[in-house]
This record gives sequence, C-alpha cells and structure tokens, in this order.
Amino acid sequence: MRRGTNLGRLGDFNQAVILESIRRAPEGISRVELAGSTGLSPQTISNVVRRLLDDGIVREDRTIVSGPGKPRTVLELEGNRLVSIGIHLDPSVLSFVAMNLRGEVLRERRIEVPNLEVAAETIQLMATTVKELIAEIRIPKKHIVGVGIAVPGPVNVEDGVVLNPPLLDGWADVELVNPLRKLLRLQVIIEKDTIASAVGELWQSKEEKNNDFVFIYCGHGFGAGLVLNNDVHHGASNNAGEIGHYSTGHKSFTCEECGADDCLAAGTSYEYISNQAKERGLELPTYEIVGPEQRAEGMNRLYELAHEGNQVAKELVTETMIMVAEVAGQLANSLDVREVVFGGPQWDKVRELVEDEVREATERRFALRGVHEIETRTSELRSNVGAIGGACVVMDASLSPKATALLLR
Amino acid sequence: MRRGTNLGRLGDFNQAVILESIRRAPEGISRVELAGSTGLSPQTISNVVRRLLDDGIVREDRTIVSGPGKPRTVLELEGNRLVSIGIHLDPSVLSFVAMNLRGEVLRERRIEVPNLEVAAETIQLMATTVKELIAEIRIPKKHIVGVGIAVPGPVNVEDGVVLNPPLLDGWADVELVNPLRKLLRLQVIIEKDTIASAVGELWQSKEEKNNDFVFIYCGHGFGAGLVLNNDVHHGASNNAGEIGHYSTGHKSFTCEECGADDCLAAGTSYEYISNQAKERGLELPTYEIVGPEQRAEGMNRLYELAHEGNQVAKELVTETMIMVAEVAGQLANSLDVREVVFGGPQWDKVRELVEDEVREATERRFALRGVHEIETRTSELRSNVGAIGGACVVMDASLSPKATALLLR
Repeated sequence: MRRGTNLGRLGDFNQAVILESIRRAPEGISRVELAGSTGLSPQTISNVVRRLLDDGIVREDRTIVSGPGKPRTVLELEGNRLVSIGIHLDPSVLSFVAMNLRGEVLRERRIEVPNLEVAAETIQLMATTVKELIAEIRIPKKHIVGVGIAVPGPVNVEDGVVLNPPLLDGWADVELVNPLRKLLRLQVIIEKDTIASAVGELWQSKEEKNNDFVFIYCGHGFGAGLVLNNDVHHGASNNAGEIGHYSTGHKSFTCEECGADDCLAAGTSYEYISNQAKERGLELPTYEIVGPEQRAEGMNRLYELAHEGNQVAKELVTETMIMVAEVAGQLANSLDVREVVFGGPQWDKVRELVEDEVREATERRFALRGVHEIETRTSELRSNVGAIGGACVVMDASLSPKATALLLR
Repeated sequence: MRRGTNLGRLGDFNQAVILESIRRAPEGISRVELAGSTGLSPQTISNVVRRLLDDGIVREDRTIVSGPGKPRTVLELEGNRLVSIGIHLDPSVLSFVAMNLRGEVLRERRIEVPNLEVAAETIQLMATTVKELIAEIRIPKKHIVGVGIAVPGPVNVEDGVVLNPPLLDGWADVELVNPLRKLLRLQVIIEKDTIASAVGELWQSKEEKNNDFVFIYCGHGFGAGLVLNNDVHHGASNNAGEIGHYSTGHKSFTCEECGADDCLAAGTSYEYISNQAKERGLELPTYEIVGPEQRAEGMNRLYELAHEGNQVAKELVTETMIMVAEVAGQLANSLDVREVVFGGPQWDKVRELVEDEVREATERRFALRGVHEIETRTSELRSNVGAIGGACVVMDASLSPKATALLLR
C-alpha cells in the first residue's frame, strides 16, 4: 500500500526535526540557526519551540556572545526531563543503564555471569533492577520514556519474543516484552543486540553528516549493525546483520548450520581457536562443552597471554580478527558505506593488539577503494554499547524524525 | 542536516502516491478505492485527479460492473502519454528500449558486439539510435520523460561519469550524461547496471507488497541490486551491490584486487573456468587475452555443451552458479530479505540447467531460515533487464513517491 500524508503528520514530523537539531547541538542553537538548518519558517519554529518549552523538554535561558554581533540566546535540552532505561541481555553479563536525552549515562549496573537459565527469574531480576535504578536517579516515572532491551538474535520484535539465540540456554521462544511491561508499567521494546548497538552509535553521533556505516559488534560472536543513509536497516524480520556464516576462505570445520567448512562462526569459535592453540604448542583451557562462560574464560586467557607478549596467542587473536575484518570489508563493499565501526566488549580487549591489521584487512577487501576510502574506527560507546544501544532504541523510537512517520497509517 | 517539511512538498508527494496507486492497478482503480489505499481524503484525491486528468496522464472513461452494487468508474493510465528511453551499455551488446508509463516496451533495438572502444563514437551512436526510436514510436518529444543509461560500475552518478569499468576498454572517466544531454536535449541519468536492474524489477512489480530482495545480475560478471524495504539501496557513492570479491571458499587464483585466492570474481572468470575444463578433459576456446567478447564466446560454447548433455560442461556451469548462489544467500542473510531474484542475460542461458542447485545453495547459506524462508525466483524482465531498468530509472526518478522528497532542500 502506498500511503499519502496530511497536515497532522507534518506537524509531528517538524517537531521531531527541531528537537533532533537541538539535541545534536550540545553547545546550544539559536532560533535563527534552527531556521537555517531545518529549512523551516520562523513561524513554524516559534510554534514548535513554544510547545517544547511548555513541555519542559528544552530551555532557552542562556545567552552566548560570539563575535561582534548581537548576543545569541540559545535553545538547549533540559537533559533529565526525559530518561530511558537500557538493558543488555548478554550471555555472560546483564547490564543496565539509565540515560538522559542528552545521551549521558546517569547510572549503570552490571551483573557478571548471571544465572539466566530460568527466563522467568531473569525477567523478575530485570524488573527489580530497573525499579532500583529509577529510584536511585530520583526522576519521576512520568519522565521515563521506556525500557529498551538488546538481546542476542534471532528476535521477534513485534511480539517482543526472544526466539532461539545459539548461546542462551533456556531462551527458546521466551516472551520478554509483555511480562516486563506488566511488571514495570512502562513502554518496553526489544531489539537484536547488534542492531541496538548501531542505533546507539547513530543516536550518539554528534556530527551533522550523512551516516553510512557497518557496525561490527564483537561479543561472544560477531554480528553487524547496518546504518545506511542515516537509517538503521532492520531487515524484513528485524534480524539484519548476521555475518556468522560468511565464507572466510580459512578452513576450520564443517558448520552444521550452513554446510561450509570455512564460515566465520566456525573459524572464530573457541573450539577451533583452542584447538589451533594446541597445535601450535599453546595450552588454553579446554572444556567438554563450550558455553558462553567457558568461551569467555578461555578467550580472556588468550587475550591475557597475547597482551603479555606470547607470540602464538598474539597470532591467534590477530588471525581471528583479520577474518572478522575481511568479512566486514566485503559487506561494507557491497553496501557501499564509508565507515566500519568496531565495538562491543571483546573489541575493547583486543583493540590495541590488532588495530592496524584490522584496518589493513578491511581496506584490502574494500574493492570500491578506487571510488572512495573506507575508514575504520572504534565505537564511542565502548564495551557498554549494548545497554546504551537499548536505551537509545527507546529514545529513537519515540523521538527521532522518520520520513516514513509522515505517511498516513 | 535534519530538514523539515511544508505544505508545498506535501502536495507533490500526494500526487506521486496517487499516480503510483493508479499505475499499480492495471485493471483500473476507482476514486473510492484510491481513498482506501492511500489514506487520503476524497477532497485531496479529487484535486490531484483533476490535475492528472488535465495533464492527460490518466483517463476516467471506463465503467466496470462487478457484483450487485453501483458500477464503478475507474481511473487508468494514459499509457503513451509518458515514455522513457532506456539504454544498456553492456560490454558485448548495446540495447535500447522505449517504455511507456504502464511499463510496456513499445520498441527495442539491439546492437550486438558493438565497437565501444571510442567512447565519443558510442555516445554519438546512442544519440542517433535514441532519435530514431523516438521517431519510430511517433510520440511527441515533450512526452519523453528522459533517457536512463545502465552502465557497468563503478559510476559517478552525480556528474554522469563512467569511472573505470573492468571490462570496458576506453571508458575510464568518460563523461556520458552531459554530451548526450546536449545531443538529445532530454533529461539523461546514468545508473550502475545492477542497481538499474533492481529499480526495474521493483518498478515493474505488480504486487502491493513490501519488497525486500537481493537482485543477482548475471552478465559478464555478477553483481547485486539491493531492494530494502521497498527502496533501492544506492550506497554512499551510488555503487552498492558489488559482490565480486566475496570469499567463496573455493580456491581459484589470487585476485590482484582483493588479495584473496577464493573470491567470486576469480572463481567465475573465464580464465579459471576454461582452465578447469582443460583439467577435466574438456577443451574450451582459449585466448591470449580474455576480453568481454572472448568471455562471451567461450561461455556460450560452455553453455551449448552443457545443454547438449556434456557432463563436464554441466558440472562447471553448476559449480559456477552455486558459488554465485552461496554468495547471494550470505548477502540475503545479512540483509534479512525475503527473496533472491536472478536475472540478466547469462541467467537466461543457464537457468534450466541449474535452477534447483541454485535454490538449494541459496537456502543453505540463508541461516535465518528458522525465522523465515528465502524464496528464489527469476526476474520478470528477462535478459533485457538492463535497458528496461534504465528506462525505469528515469520514470522512478521523475514520478515515484519518495518520503525523502518531502524534506525541504
């Protein structure tokens, strides 16, 4: 169905555009500058700003003297007027943040190696922790926009269900949104962790540029978040960004899921890495079954050894990350983006060791380099990107101007 | 820059939405049905329809009796009121179509194995041929929307320049749009061939569904066109869809461009295929240098043998297309689309031989299959998809409703 638009839609959209422009100007922005940046008439800006002032979301009480002209009175966000809660359900850590509209983290909480196997108990734990956080930040509940949860894929975003994440036992087809909404009486949204991370990276971007990037989330596995032309690409079922079954050209073992003997998931698995270590004379912890806890333990040992200067450990970390970077370069090439952003908890642990090799491998696989460069950089949200991403998902859903929101339902 | 919108933008957009709805209803659509499908008020529809009738783009003179109710008077396109010209600059064939707003090809022209090496002469040939086509279809020039040219990538769409296509000698940094515009005094647009094909496939789609697909263009090489959420993804430099340097896991030879020894471009090159044939006891034509003409000749011989039942030829064709399908499956998986569409001149030649294997390989690499299925199908535009795609690019640029067009410039 092709939908039209009308005046009602138009007003909401322009309000979102103006709020977005104020949000992205941490130094403040005057009404005249707003007219320039949005293309809107002074009358429209005046109407919208009055509404935002009445709602207490922005303030206009600071005057800036710059240059010889008249001092400018600037609009700024009333940061703590709107706050969202982000949760990251990661197999080895459950993290929470309370974030305000300026993107500042007011409070965070981490529960390391939580017992997640009983989903109902985890949901209860989430609710209790969120309530505690809200109490601690002392912000009235009516100013809490909602709760965003970043979860491992695949997910069913519409129904708020975690489908069957490979590393999360006890979480097949678990309804997460509805029970939490009932316990908290707040808006609750879930999003795949890699997509939430990309939403976070985009939301927090301070530059007024056209954002196009592949976000590589380095956690227990590797996944991508795709930002195309300033929009996060969610995919037909909100599960975009899977890169685990890309061929890497490096044989490891035959993957049951894709049938290839060189896919990224197999080549970066702890089973393969610890095996390779052994072949090269390095003993890493071994386990009968490698769950998230074991992988985290084993990989942390590997990183430790690499940082201490062990050559084999360094090689293995580098080879693993080169495989990831090569896939990132291929994907960036076929999407024609300008940046690859690396982030997530594992990236922080290996960055210093592999940054140059990762850049080089990404660039090598970027065949469009004759047309434009590919830049690689590290996420500004660091290892907490999942939880911050979750908080940004809620802000984004409620406040960002989306051209599609102009269309009649 | 975040831009707002206003009433002027709104009117143009709604007109485009209504025209699009009429276009996608080949059986005709009544004003009441239009209100339902677009969500617009009867008053808005009445104003826009009057304008379209005055411009002669639609007609409203046919009455349909269906069921017991009052007969419906339906709106339909006045097909030949708007016509666009599409050109496909392919290394081995230069093709032209004249297409009307209903998507019907009024006339076509093919120049096989053209001498393209002197770009200026080719541009002259294009201009002459377009003029002849326009004369033959007997449609006044004022009803010609423009000329869309599908060219091998990489391209600079904004400046109308062909950058440096690997298989097109003499076409490094060739200005194509400006000279042709001067010769024809018509709007001229270029687009990468794989993207133009995807635009064509989307424009011609008669179904009112949310289109999400990876279009695999099978020509001299293999490239993709990406349709995400009903929009063609162009990429930061309008060069999205490169898949030539994906790792396939099948070693061939080291590619100079990406450094891998298993990339798709190398594994599907005629150099590698003819070499493999020889190793398996099948003699294919060999050449000192393999240009587009030689590749076409050699591959045609291979297809011929495969169709005649030669086992080695069949194997080689199948192995080649499985590699392409596996890459398509990986890309479709990471974009979370619902369809992979195969098309282009080479697909028509191999389809019967490999359809099942291609479907199977695509599905195997689609790891999201637990969430939803991936459908593989053949393009409806067949081997002429490039030229038709070019014609659709012009129609699309001029007429399709785009939410982003609502924003103030």
